[in-house]
Amino acid sequence: MKRKKISELTTNRLSIYLRCLNDLAAAGIKRVSSQELAEQFNLNSAQIRKDLGYFGEFGVRGTGYFIDDLRAHLTKILGLDKPHRVGIVGAGRLGRALANYNGLEKSNFTVVALFDNDTSKIGERTRSGIEIFDVKRITKVVHDQEIDVAVIAVPARSAQRVLNQVMAAGVKAILNFAPAPLKTRLGVKVKTVDLTTSLESLAYFLAQPRSANVTHAHRSDNFKDLEEKKEQTP
Amino acid sequence: MKRKKISELTTNRLSIYLRCLNDLAAAGIKRVSSQELAEQFNLNSAQIRKDLGYFGEFGVRGTGYFIDDLRAHLTKILGLDKPHRVGIVGAGRLGRALANYNGLEKSNFTVVALFDNDTSKIGERTRSGIEIFDVKRITKVVHDQEIDVAVIAVPARSAQRVLNQVMAAGVKAILNFAPAPLKTRLGVKVKTVDLTTSLESLAYFLAQPRSANVTHAHRSDNFKDLEEKKEQTP
Repeated sequence: MKRKKISELTTNRLSIYLRCLNDLAAAGIKRVSSQELAEQFNLNSAQIRKDLGYFGEFGVRGTGYFIDDLRAHLTKILGLDKPHRVGIVGAGRLGRALANYNGLEKSNFTVVALFDNDTSKIGERTRSGIEIFDVKRITKVVHDQEIDVAVIAVPARSAQRVLNQVMAAGVKAILNFAPAPLKTRLGVKVKTVDLTTSLESLAYFLAQPRSANVTHAHRSDNFKDLEEKKEQTP
Repeated sequence: MKRKKISELTTNRLSIYLRCLNDLAAAGIKRVSSQELAEQFNLNSAQIRKDLGYFGEFGVRGTGYFIDDLRAHLTKILGLDKPHRVGIVGAGRLGRALANYNGLEKSNFTVVALFDNDTSKIGERTRSGIEIFDVKRITKVVHDQEIDVAVIAVPARSAQRVLNQVMAAGVKAILNFAPAPLKTRLGVKVKTVDLTTSLESLAYFLAQPRSANVTHAHRSDNFKDLEEKKEQTP
């Protein structure tokens, strides 16, 4: 398969398509057209055809996509054909909730370790049996447990320090929940999930006069997030 | 204050600026230039000046911004000058972790109720004293508790049904954690936080050959998320 450089918005959409196709496959469906896929999951059929066109021809005109073939291909494109081993730094409520979150296994992610600097937590195990290690030992545990993805679930003030430890341990893909812009280095990818910013954008929406609300919300926003964005200069 | 229609990317950045300014204020600092703000928090100084320019002149050339004035203004623009009352649907691990997450109060959000359809949970209270209500009673509880923001923390297959219940109860701003594209209606804003998609975009990054990784990651990605995005056709 030829590897092309595709944008993160595109990979986000591929990830959504894959989940939709998994649902259809679980329901025993073998083929689907871009139109049907779009209607059933509130997606955009032209966008689907364009996105899937990047990777060659999966569809047959008038017949649609063969679901199993397309799933296998998307799984491979997204790097989900090999298992990923996740370490979570921060064994507070959020870190533990993530460790026990069972939506991850479906995507071939397994949480194998938690880390904390609170000595009273070290050596404990979560309900699902995951051990909490001293964050000082992270380099050794990352190596022994073959961790390739780290999750940062610590307060904002500690996030940069933890990120530096995680990068020094050789982890190259990091999901950050701390509400802080972080400095990364070459060859490392940090993806931030910022709950505060998400909530604040809802507050902004609520603060608008009713008419402005309506023009903002004329279609499903969670899909709009996945489309190309152009800043509107007011 | 004149209200202008600004994009979500801009409000996301305003939310980040506000957090940075709060940090500076807590440290006793009174004034800051866009340059200093940019350097200290890994932001872009030209973008800061442009964003803040939308709302009139807060800065004085050569002197910088008066932090307290700017904070008050951003707080008002973002709709954070009034308190928001949050109801969380889904009293599983994620819902409870969010209910106990103490990063929300700083932004004037208070979780006041949890909802579930599991009768064994109804009437229980979380450690922080928040009651779990029967989701069937959501309309009454939303009214009584003056809930204006809902969080959906249920499995994907129940998300659309829950969203419909939440919208029927009159809630207009919703944060969705279920990995499912949802149909909303006019005047309602749904913001989706999709952990699976975030993790899968990391898997995609790891699946790239090393040279592609490096070109992808030449600067901090969590800041790049906040900038204008242009899809690159491969």
